[in-house]
Amino acid sequence: MDAYRVEPGTKIRLSDHDSAACSPGDRADKGARKMEKLAMALYDLQERLYAEHRHKVLIILQGMDTAGKDGTIRHVFRHMNPQGVRVACFKKPTQPEADHDYLWRVHMQTPGAGEIVIFNRSHYEDVLIQRVHRMVPKNVWSRRYDHINAFERMLAEEGTTIIKFFLHIGYAEQKKRLLERLENPDKQWKLRPEDAAERKLWPAYAKAYEAVLERTSTPWAPWYIIPADHKWYRNLVISTIMVATLKGLDIKRPKAQFDLSDFQLD
Amino acid sequence: MDAYRVEPGTKIRLSDHDSAACSPGDRADKGARKMEKLAMALYDLQERLYAEHRHKVLIILQGMDTAGKDGTIRHVFRHMNPQGVRVACFKKPTQPEADHDYLWRVHMQTPGAGEIVIFNRSHYEDVLIQRVHRMVPKNVWSRRYDHINAFERMLAEEGTTIIKFFLHIGYAEQKKRLLERLENPDKQWKLRPEDAAERKLWPAYAKAYEAVLERTSTPWAPWYIIPADHKWYRNLVISTIMVATLKGLDIKRPKAQFDLSDFQLD
Repeated sequence: MDAYRVEPGTKIRLSDHDSAACSPGDRADKGARKMEKLAMALYDLQERLYAEHRHKVLIILQGMDTAGKDGTIRHVFRHMNPQGVRVACFKKPTQPEADHDYLWRVHMQTPGAGEIVIFNRSHYEDVLIQRVHRMVPKNVWSRRYDHINAFERMLAEEGTTIIKFFLHIGYAEQKKRLLERLENPDKQWKLRPEDAAERKLWPAYAKAYEAVLERTSTPWAPWYIIPADHKWYRNLVISTIMVATLKGLDIKRPKAQFDLSDFQLD
Repeated sequence: MDAYRVEPGTKIRLSDHDSAACSPGDRADKGARKMEKLAMALYDLQERLYAEHRHKVLIILQGMDTAGKDGTIRHVFRHMNPQGVRVACFKKPTQPEADHDYLWRVHMQTPGAGEIVIFNRSHYEDVLIQRVHRMVPKNVWSRRYDHINAFERMLAEEGTTIIKFFLHIGYAEQKKRLLERLENPDKQWKLRPEDAAERKLWPAYAKAYEAVLERTSTPWAPWYIIPADHKWYRNLVISTIMVATLKGLDIKRPKAQFDLSDFQLD
């Protein structure tokens, strides 16, 4: 688990990280038995987190197109109670969003007490797509790493636990997944005309992600580089990290809010 | 299923509706086998609804304290994809909410295209708790049934499917559940000091609910009175109604948004 955590100050080359890594011992059933246990643990921890109404948890999912952000949400977070779990998708900003600074719409979606919020894409797009497509000049995007660290630090110091997952897939795996979408009529709706052009920018995105991972993995908001070519292994690793992190929060059983001896019923 | 639907114009006496009703044939495994099938159907329908990005679905849950609103969310809606399903809880209005009309905060939480939103309590509290506790005078709350019908009609005519569940428990069952909370240290946090006093107002709440069911069950937003003393039966009936309603929407497989023959990959 710690193997996938990015230590602050580490130099990152994505090509040094094996996107197809997995645990050979779990291959037979694709980790199904372990996943079942983890899903139950996660359900239980989330119930207690919700009941205690104290901790706030923010999960950030980033990755190249087809890396499996939607699939992770579907498989890892589906068994939790939707009351207390929320997904926020950050797409092309609307006019009022674009009229504000880039953290404005993000701040509004951060978790409240007892809540787990999953960001499907995030403020990191503002140093990824915006950098790669030169939507803002370098002197603008290059200042943002510090803004982001300061923003996340404030959230953490005010009680938010932040975990950031970079879903790492290989260039060949992306092609496979795009072709799957092209050929399977049930998946064609997921293709966007820009997907092919975006794929041509892979090296530029890789470079932008390396900068994100180097500059914004902090003690208060660490990045994990998740091998994501094998979907089952991706789910297993993310679930394991989630369970360990939530267990570390020391969630207490909430108490009654008043003197129960006063409680009389007819 | 239709047996539990309130036909517009029907006179309602809650005491005529058996809160402990259940299907004897499913008693042995508490409907577990049927529930599994329904949960899978619901998962599948919701995925397609989300992909199609056309229909909007609004579920309203109401009921006396301990009627099982939270439990219904946990059991019926947990297996759907949290991306595309959202729960909105309506508690005591905040100051900005109270500064507006009572439908203002509700309108903001209505579902968008492809989304299923579950209201845990709703604008109906504005003709329930507000009426029972005389928080507004009769000439104010009595006009609200018409507002609500007009509001829901607009939502429906603009593409929202609305299903309203009244979770019907008996007076004795409520006592059992409150005592369970009192005696089980894991559940004591759920008790509120006002629960005992609220229980004393049962007849006033029953009368207010009868008015709601009589006046706001419409062809575009029907109420269902769900026997809820048996939790497993409550879940079974709600799941059945959900599956039938979603199947009736004729959700189509979404198409690619552009000419796929233009799509070239390296």
